[in-house]
Amino acid sequence: MSAPLRIAVAGLGTVGSGTLQLLAEHSDLIAARCGRPIEVYAVSARDRKKNRSIDVSGMRWFGDPVAMAGEADIDVVIELIGGSDGIAKQVIERAFAAGHSVITANKALLATHGVTLARAAEAAGVTLGYEAAVAGGVPVIKSLREGLAGNNVSRIYGILNGTCNYILSTMRDSGREFAEVLDEAQTLGYAEADPAFDVDGVDTAHKLAILTALAFGCEVNLAGVHVEGIRDVSALDITYANELGYRIKLLGVASRSNGGVEQRVYPCMILADTPIANVEGVFNAVVAEGDYVGTILTEGRGAGARPTASAVVDDLIDCTRGARLPTFAVPAKDLASLPSVPIEDHVGCHYVRLTVVDRPGVIADIAAALRDEEISLEALLQRGRAPGEAVDVVITTHETSGLAMDNALRCIERLDSVLEPPRRIRIEAL
Amino acid sequence: MSAPLRIAVAGLGTVGSGTLQLLAEHSDLIAARCGRPIEVYAVSARDRKKNRSIDVSGMRWFGDPVAMAGEADIDVVIELIGGSDGIAKQVIERAFAAGHSVITANKALLATHGVTLARAAEAAGVTLGYEAAVAGGVPVIKSLREGLAGNNVSRIYGILNGTCNYILSTMRDSGREFAEVLDEAQTLGYAEADPAFDVDGVDTAHKLAILTALAFGCEVNLAGVHVEGIRDVSALDITYANELGYRIKLLGVASRSNGGVEQRVYPCMILADTPIANVEGVFNAVVAEGDYVGTILTEGRGAGARPTASAVVDDLIDCTRGARLPTFAVPAKDLASLPSVPIEDHVGCHYVRLTVVDRPGVIADIAAALRDEEISLEALLQRGRAPGEAVDVVITTHETSGLAMDNALRCIERLDSVLEPPRRIRIEAL
Repeated sequence: MSAPLRIAVAGLGTVGSGTLQLLAEHSDLIAARCGRPIEVYAVSARDRKKNRSIDVSGMRWFGDPVAMAGEADIDVVIELIGGSDGIAKQVIERAFAAGHSVITANKALLATHGVTLARAAEAAGVTLGYEAAVAGGVPVIKSLREGLAGNNVSRIYGILNGTCNYILSTMRDSGREFAEVLDEAQTLGYAEADPAFDVDGVDTAHKLAILTALAFGCEVNLAGVHVEGIRDVSALDITYANELGYRIKLLGVASRSNGGVEQRVYPCMILADTPIANVEGVFNAVVAEGDYVGTILTEGRGAGARPTASAVVDDLIDCTRGARLPTFAVPAKDLASLPSVPIEDHVGCHYVRLTVVDRPGVIADIAAALRDEEISLEALLQRGRAPGEAVDVVITTHETSGLAMDNALRCIERLDSVLEPPRRIRIEAL
Repeated sequence: MSAPLRIAVAGLGTVGSGTLQLLAEHSDLIAARCGRPIEVYAVSARDRKKNRSIDVSGMRWFGDPVAMAGEADIDVVIELIGGSDGIAKQVIERAFAAGHSVITANKALLATHGVTLARAAEAAGVTLGYEAAVAGGVPVIKSLREGLAGNNVSRIYGILNGTCNYILSTMRDSGREFAEVLDEAQTLGYAEADPAFDVDGVDTAHKLAILTALAFGCEVNLAGVHVEGIRDVSALDITYANELGYRIKLLGVASRSNGGVEQRVYPCMILADTPIANVEGVFNAVVAEGDYVGTILTEGRGAGARPTASAVVDDLIDCTRGARLPTFAVPAKDLASLPSVPIEDHVGCHYVRLTVVDRPGVIADIAAALRDEEISLEALLQRGRAPGEAVDVVITTHETSGLAMDNALRCIERLDSVLEPPRRIRIEAL
């Protein structure tokens, strides 16, 4: 058996502790699979005395993770500190400078500085592994980078945030509103005390930006992602979605169009019998469409100490096996700089819910506003009758640009008979 | 850019031609992803003049694929001849002897001689890639071998034969019987003229034997797979399955139990809301359960020229990237020789359909036969009333061994009031 692979772990939160636990529990199995053992050379965290699921008192300790990353006797540095800048970035740069490979679960950092880091890794002749950064334990990075490597990928989309998927699944099952379900999710530990990062779509946007680069061999472009969160999804819209044969899911979607890339994160309606529509609760799923392989779906637990530790260790095992992979599909210097298509130019179908006064001529006015933008109606539902009172009108359209829809909705909102701002949810054709 | 990777392709049927087409169509993309181009050094097939989707007239041609595999100027031999012995095996052995890596889609060969070939590959210091052998384009081999490498895998199961899944899906949708749907599938090209290999479960058994070795790090043991096909699945059983909240699917299932391995291929009932229950038509799906990652599902097209070519090229790209992987999870010399648990000892729930005379005391006799084997009833349905005539009685049981169920069914079959051999379908708890 070869010499051990020596690792240093920076950050001992739930994922860091879970990784140490996995390495300890499965040391024989991992050594058998790799042909060499993995040795924890050193660890670093803020508080040495903190109560953790694993005893670190016997491990070589560094108060300064950057100093640790520069140690000569290390093969791989595992960065689990988090954050899109600051110490995590310094740790990785120091590791590369010292000629060490890096494994990270840090999606914010990769989404923000992915290209810079990929260049640095490749210049140093080392690997940057980040399977744990997207969809936790689900091997989506590996599937895309290696499992679809011979394909021209046209689209990739997924449910990438378990908190949002849990909230939307629970809203649908229970008929309750967002705020109430969020509250419960926080009590149960499925949502953070500050939920903004998850429910506003930021976390999904980070992950989508990484997947986009990998799928299309282009530079990571977080700024090019259109982002909407799930705070405005109402129980009423979920009810209408069901009635129309749809589910509402927070998706990240990236596709090629007109020489550029579309990237959008939003709650959208998808047909209820699509496989991904039935991915419920805290599960994540990613679908990739390749020109030879067709459609590949991968589903599993997208978060949590154990699944994420599993992904970290997969990358570690890859390091022991000597694979030399470009960070994002192609070498960093060859990543294409593709223009970002603004959301106004993304073409698709729309659902619109209006609160209107129930009186003759209202529908004609709405239909005229759509016609003026050359938007074709697919369906129109008016629920209940209440002459002179407020009623719901629900519309679905055929394909149109985001801009045409924006224009039509501005006209509709100005109508006297329209009592509230229209609620629009895009319908994603999968 | 490095020197080209030179390949030789043995066998130019649909997959071989598809592979050449993919390599030609995506040569730039593949070169960009691998850092080196792939060059088709030579091809071999029975008939040089046959009409193919790609022109091979300009390619170096070998009438003898074994001679081609021994050529010095090759890096990788792609074996797409098929068959569990004979020429395909000779091609691979000759390639290893000459120091060439091999990529194959040949599940029959791997299921029969997998350990021998893995030993030969590792002794020669080369790679044996077989992503295309299981589930076509779906990267299940990669997911298992690399994506779950840090996990202790407890169970793996899947829908591994698109023909059977298409037939069962169509039977359910249309209410028609097996023979009629098979006939139609043959007309549509979804089933072979001789369908035995598919519908009798042999193809699924080959694939399961390979997945088992990979999941548990044990020797491939095709003889240890219990195999039942789908010929006896009736429209009536599908109707009752629906009523009970199940779907009938041909699954391959492998799990660890009592220090051994259970491997079974059979049409079984699974709860309708399980994700894999909704994998329909020609799609394949594999679920792996790891102790850290939890449950991972991967789904996609399990057959066809283009998806299978995609898998072949994935393995090729891995070769260019220099990964050195053990063939089955661990080096061939370390593969465990795990005892095979006979089907009589597999514990599970059962569905039994009986045709009985509708008269007092029948149910008591059946219940007594089950009690004598300590089998606990979960549900009993008698549909319709027809005193003195034949009626259906459907039973589902709690967990019991296959042997206890065999014994009970022997007793039940001997009862005067039971008119036909009982029909038993196992219920798989997923």
